[in-house]
Amino acid sequence: MNVSQVLHMNGGVGEASYSNNSFVQQHVISLTKSIREEAITSLYCSTSPRTLAIADLGCSSGPNTLLVVSEFIKVVEKLCRASNHESPEYMIFLNDLSGNDFNNIFRSLDSFKEKLRGEMEHEMGPCYISGVPGSFYGRVFPKQSLHLVHSSYSLMWLSKVPENVNNNKGNIYMSSTSPANVLTAYYNQFQRDFSKFLKCRAVEVVEGGRMILTFLGRKSNNMCSKECCYIWELMAMALNDMVLEGIIKEEQLDTFNIPQYTPSPSEVKLEVLKEGSFNVDQLEVSEVNWNVLDEWNALACESHSSESLNDGAYNVTQCMRAVSEPMLINHFGESIIEDLFDRYQEILIDRMSKEKTKFVNVTISLTRKP
Amino acid sequence: MNVSQVLHMNGGVGEASYSNNSFVQQHVISLTKSIREEAITSLYCSTSPRTLAIADLGCSSGPNTLLVVSEFIKVVEKLCRASNHESPEYMIFLNDLSGNDFNNIFRSLDSFKEKLRGEMEHEMGPCYISGVPGSFYGRVFPKQSLHLVHSSYSLMWLSKVPENVNNNKGNIYMSSTSPANVLTAYYNQFQRDFSKFLKCRAVEVVEGGRMILTFLGRKSNNMCSKECCYIWELMAMALNDMVLEGIIKEEQLDTFNIPQYTPSPSEVKLEVLKEGSFNVDQLEVSEVNWNVLDEWNALACESHSSESLNDGAYNVTQCMRAVSEPMLINHFGESIIEDLFDRYQEILIDRMSKEKTKFVNVTISLTRKP
Repeated sequence: MNVSQVLHMNGGVGEASYSNNSFVQQHVISLTKSIREEAITSLYCSTSPRTLAIADLGCSSGPNTLLVVSEFIKVVEKLCRASNHESPEYMIFLNDLSGNDFNNIFRSLDSFKEKLRGEMEHEMGPCYISGVPGSFYGRVFPKQSLHLVHSSYSLMWLSKVPENVNNNKGNIYMSSTSPANVLTAYYNQFQRDFSKFLKCRAVEVVEGGRMILTFLGRKSNNMCSKECCYIWELMAMALNDMVLEGIIKEEQLDTFNIPQYTPSPSEVKLEVLKEGSFNVDQLEVSEVNWNVLDEWNALACESHSSESLNDGAYNVTQCMRAVSEPMLINHFGESIIEDLFDRYQEILIDRMSKEKTKFVNVTISLTRKP
Repeated sequence: MNVSQVLHMNGGVGEASYSNNSFVQQHVISLTKSIREEAITSLYCSTSPRTLAIADLGCSSGPNTLLVVSEFIKVVEKLCRASNHESPEYMIFLNDLSGNDFNNIFRSLDSFKEKLRGEMEHEMGPCYISGVPGSFYGRVFPKQSLHLVHSSYSLMWLSKVPENVNNNKGNIYMSSTSPANVLTAYYNQFQRDFSKFLKCRAVEVVEGGRMILTFLGRKSNNMCSKECCYIWELMAMALNDMVLEGIIKEEQLDTFNIPQYTPSPSEVKLEVLKEGSFNVDQLEVSEVNWNVLDEWNALACESHSSESLNDGAYNVTQCMRAVSEPMLINHFGESIIEDLFDRYQEILIDRMSKEKTKFVNVTISLTRKP
C-alpha cells in the first residue's frame, strides 16, 4: 500500500464522509484548547510578527479543518486590541496528503471568512488561506517560514505499513496476539517517521516558533495495550468472520495492516529530546469516549438508553469508516465494505454495552530552540 | 449569476473536462514563451532571490496548469548553473476561483515533480507548491510576497456580468447588434476589474517584480469586432434556435450574458498607465486558429480534409463547452446542454468551412516600479 496515495479521510459531504463523521476529532480539539491558547499567546507576545504564518498539518476536510484556525485568529486579535497593536496579516497553510478533499475546504472558505469577521468586534487582519498538499514526513514548507504548527489526530498515521509484519496473522494492527517482531517493527516505524517529522519542522519553524501536536495514543507503556488496540481488534474480528465465511481470503487479511502507531507520552517525548531542536513546554494526556455522544450526554447529565447505545455504535462505526474506508477499498475492494461495517457495528453494539471504551490522546506543546 | 461561485472550467478528466480540452490555451502559452523567458531571466539576474515566489493566477486544472511553472524553473536552474549560484527555493502559488478542481491538480503534483527532476541535468532547488483559492479581483497574497505573477487566458473573465445590459436582446455577449449602452457597460466593467487587479498586485508584488498577462482579446479598436465576438455570436445562434423551438424561454436567453471582455492592446495598456505602479516592458498581439489542429497541421505542412474540419469543429465545441458549461448549467439548467452543443457544433462545422477563424491574444509584460 502506498500510504501517501491511499490514506485520506472519506471526501465529500455524504453520509460516510469524514466531514459528517468527525465528532470525536472535534471533541479532542476542544479538550486541547487551553494548550493552544497558551502557545499562541506566548508566541504572539514574545514576537508580535507583522505576518503570522500558521500551518495545520493533516487538516483533513470538514468542520474541524478551520476550527483551530479561527480560534488562533480570535486569540491574536484579542491580544492586538489589548496591546493596541495593529492586527497582523494571517497566512494559513492547510496541509494534508494529496488525496484529501481540498475542493471541499476551498468551497467553504468564503463563508468561513465571512462568519469569522462577523464574530469579531473589530476589523481583523487580512487572512490568506492556502492548501499545501504533501506528506509531513518530508519537507512541505520553505526554510524558517512558519511561526506556529498545529496537528491534531494525524501524526499517529505512519508514512507506511512497517516492514516485516507478515506474521501478524489474524490481526490488522498491533494486538496482544501479535508476535514481538511486529510490535518492534511498528515502534521502529513510528520512531523513524516522527523523528523525520521533527527534523523537517525544525528547518521550517522560526526560532521561538511553536508546535502543538495531538496524537491518538495510549497511557500504558505496553504498546499492545487494549486502550489503543481494541478498536482495530474489533474490526479484525469482523474481517476474520468474513474469512471464515469465505467472503475474504485468509491471505488477504494476513497481508493487511493499518499504518498507524498510537504512542505513549514518554515515547513522544523521547523522540523530541533525541531530535533536539525543540523544547518541551507541555505534555498532556486526555481521554474521549468512543461514543462521543456520551461526553455530551454527561455534560447534559443525561443517562443513556439502549437507543442511544445503538446510535453510539453507529457513530463509532461511521467515524472509523470515514478514516479507514479508502485503505480498506484499496486492499479488499469495494464490494466487502457495506458487509464489513454492518458486522463491525454489531460487534461494537455488543462491546460498548458491556465496557467503557475510550480513546487516549497525547498532546505535546513545543518551542523551537534558538 | 455570482461569477466567483459559478465560473470555473469543467473539472475532472472526462470527455468534457477542461483538462482534456485546453489545447488552444496550451498553444497560446507556447506563443508567449519568449516574453516569459525574458521576464524571468531579467528578474533572476537582477535580484537572485534565495526564495523565488511565483504565482499563476487563473491556473485552472489540467496539463497547462504546471506547464509555465516548469518552464520558469528550468530557466532559473540554467541561470544558476551558468552563474554558479545555488538554486533558490521555489514557492509556487496556484490560484483560481474556489470552484476550480484543485484536487485534480494536487493529485498530479508528485508525478509532476518527479518528471521535472528527471528533466534536469543537475539537482534543482526544492519546490513548494500550494493552491490558493480566491478571486484575483481582490487581495490573494500578503504584502510584497511575490516575485513573479503569470496569468494566461483568465483576465478576460470579468468579476461579474456588467450591470445595465438587460436590453442586449438575442445576444449573450457584445455583438454588432448590441445597443451602445451594452458596449459601454462591458468596457466599464473591464476597466473597474482590471484596475482593481492591478491595484491588488501592486501591493503583493515586490519592487522589480515581474508580471506577464495574456488576455483573450482583439486587435481592432471596435469592441464588437467579429474577431472577438463571433465565437459567442455562433453560440447565441444555437440558443436563439432553441428559443424558436420553445426549448428555451426568450426571457431566459435575454437575461444571459457572458462575463467576459476581450480588450485591445491599447485598452490594456491604458489601465496599466492609469494605475501607475507598473512599467510596461512589452505589449504583443498573437493569433491562434479556433481549430488549433490547423496550427499543428500547418507546422507539419499537412492540408486539411473534411474529416479534419469536423474534428476541428468538435475540438472548438469541446473547448468552449469546457469553459462555459458551468455557467450555462447555472442559468439554463443541465437538460439543454447536450442539445445546445450539438447545434453549436453543426454551426461551427458550417462556418469554419467557409471562413478563417482565429482567436486574438494580447500579452503584456510589466515590472513593478520601485
